[in-house]
Amino acid sequence: MSNPLPHRQRFGLALLFTLVLPLLAHANEPLPSWHDGPAKKSIIAFVQAVTDQSSKDFVRPAERIAVFDNDGTLWSEQPAYFELLFAFDEVKRTAAQHPEWKTTQPFKAVLENDHKALAASGMDGLLKIVGATHSGMTTEAFDDYAKTWLTQARHPKTGKPYTEMIFQPMLEMLDYLRSQNFKTYIVSGGDTGFMRTFAEQVYGIPPEQVIGTTFVTAYQFKDGKASIVRLPKVAHNDDGPGKPVSIDAVIGRRPILAFGNSDGDLQMLQWTAAGPGKRFMGLVHHTDAKREWAYDRQSDIGRLDKALDEANSRGWTVVDMATEWRRIYPFDPPATGQVQ
Amino acid sequence: MSNPLPHRQRFGLALLFTLVLPLLAHANEPLPSWHDGPAKKSIIAFVQAVTDQSSKDFVRPAERIAVFDNDGTLWSEQPAYFELLFAFDEVKRTAAQHPEWKTTQPFKAVLENDHKALAASGMDGLLKIVGATHSGMTTEAFDDYAKTWLTQARHPKTGKPYTEMIFQPMLEMLDYLRSQNFKTYIVSGGDTGFMRTFAEQVYGIPPEQVIGTTFVTAYQFKDGKASIVRLPKVAHNDDGPGKPVSIDAVIGRRPILAFGNSDGDLQMLQWTAAGPGKRFMGLVHHTDAKREWAYDRQSDIGRLDKALDEANSRGWTVVDMATEWRRIYPFDPPATGQVQ
Repeated sequence: MSNPLPHRQRFGLALLFTLVLPLLAHANEPLPSWHDGPAKKSIIAFVQAVTDQSSKDFVRPAERIAVFDNDGTLWSEQPAYFELLFAFDEVKRTAAQHPEWKTTQPFKAVLENDHKALAASGMDGLLKIVGATHSGMTTEAFDDYAKTWLTQARHPKTGKPYTEMIFQPMLEMLDYLRSQNFKTYIVSGGDTGFMRTFAEQVYGIPPEQVIGTTFVTAYQFKDGKASIVRLPKVAHNDDGPGKPVSIDAVIGRRPILAFGNSDGDLQMLQWTAAGPGKRFMGLVHHTDAKREWAYDRQSDIGRLDKALDEANSRGWTVVDMATEWRRIYPFDPPATGQVQ
Repeated sequence: MSNPLPHRQRFGLALLFTLVLPLLAHANEPLPSWHDGPAKKSIIAFVQAVTDQSSKDFVRPAERIAVFDNDGTLWSEQPAYFELLFAFDEVKRTAAQHPEWKTTQPFKAVLENDHKALAASGMDGLLKIVGATHSGMTTEAFDDYAKTWLTQARHPKTGKPYTEMIFQPMLEMLDYLRSQNFKTYIVSGGDTGFMRTFAEQVYGIPPEQVIGTTFVTAYQFKDGKASIVRLPKVAHNDDGPGKPVSIDAVIGRRPILAFGNSDGDLQMLQWTAAGPGKRFMGLVHHTDAKREWAYDRQSDIGRLDKALDEANSRGWTVVDMATEWRRIYPFDPPATGQVQ
């Protein structure tokens, strides 16, 4: 048969194959902000194995559940969990309505920026602050406060909005997984409502795939108006053993991939690892004091001790941030030689 | 320009348009088991309005959340909630391990089929039976018991497996909504784990879109084995005001469509109705004593009283089962003139 295309069209096709297609291929290469190190290799090998229909490890799309911790895994968590900084700012913003706070700890310590007194108030003190700033209002009012703060507040070290202090390599991993028909979830100690105010826009994770700590709420129907009110009582603490519990309650399937960064993620990783078939367990290890922070076994925030031992002994993927990530934040300049 | 297609191809296209396309259109017509009555018309009008990009009522796919009660809305609920019949059978199955039940109410009443004594034990008695049969085991063991029962048990009136006593018109509605990019959820008083054992296969609703009553659970890690154990304490009662509460907690978006059949669905319907933009609120009204059951205002099970008044006064869609549905169950013969 003669070639059915005139010369000009053939030339056009040749151009397409030699110039354009390689660029497209390059643009589609997953995880560009990851070095070609062991972590990137293990992620891609896992995804290829469970999505290949001819593989013994194939997992049908409906069961491709991937869960991610948020603080320290998808965004930074220093010098304190960002949501705690929100709570401190909310105490200051609403102090005029609570004159008693001027003389009552731990609120007095927040108002006076008294770090020593705040530290002395311990976990009980922090829970009082979170309770006072996260309840006693409708869910819609809380969403508005959180959104306003996230728009206006700036990180003390970088001067950036908190929603920009997200990890570019993890954003790419979320996108990569979704392109392979994974359903990506957040499972984190943060307040569910707080995380939902930004997770869809920032991570591409819709509200129904955000699982976190929750407060007891009550339905109210007054004067024809329906609302849901947050009460000052924690319903579920989504940390440690609370994570597999909430995964079972909300998702009802065991994840095949879990990513965390601290001992608070250990049980979620164990629960994921304990299922049948191929599994992926990953830990972000904060090793980069220059570009982010470096901390693990002795840290008050994001302590990574038992989970690091278990990861090392069981062959889970530990991501050494300093050596595995070309870039930390989306606002960082691309590293030399990085494909854009 | 001359017609670029040879005669034979043009004839083929003409044939396609005159013969084949109308058949395809017919096959795709939604809700074939619904009569062309007011309910079907209101469902289709709503779906068309919120999915038409040029409509002022357009809702983007991510926000097309539809919630359905289960008992009495997606399947029958007479002579008792099917899950309660499961609990009674579980008491009998495990009685040998609980010799004390022979002399302790309400278990004695179940073992002796003593309906009078069972009724006298009231709601407290029923909760004891549900607690004893739904807890004290791992989530996986419970799933196995529920699946076994659903496979083996038969309904006392129809002799059919309970999972076949589902409403064909509602299955079609679920399919129709999903074809229009709605996300369909169950929000029901039944135990979440119980409903998840059949919802995916029977309704096409995956585990993560099943919301129900939950028991407190605990994560256990013993001898390298991870499990989640059900404890004999209700964590959330997903009935009445518990429904908007769980919708907010699990989905985090307000539905734009809600369907129920009893006063236990009233708050879910109110919460749905209270959002901005176009909304759909529906009630299945059990009016067909011949093909199913007829009950409403005075019924112990599935009482439809306040919600019926509110539906009538606010113009919600009330589905008169006897006049709106051509067919009740998938195993019913098609009604005369019904398009298959």
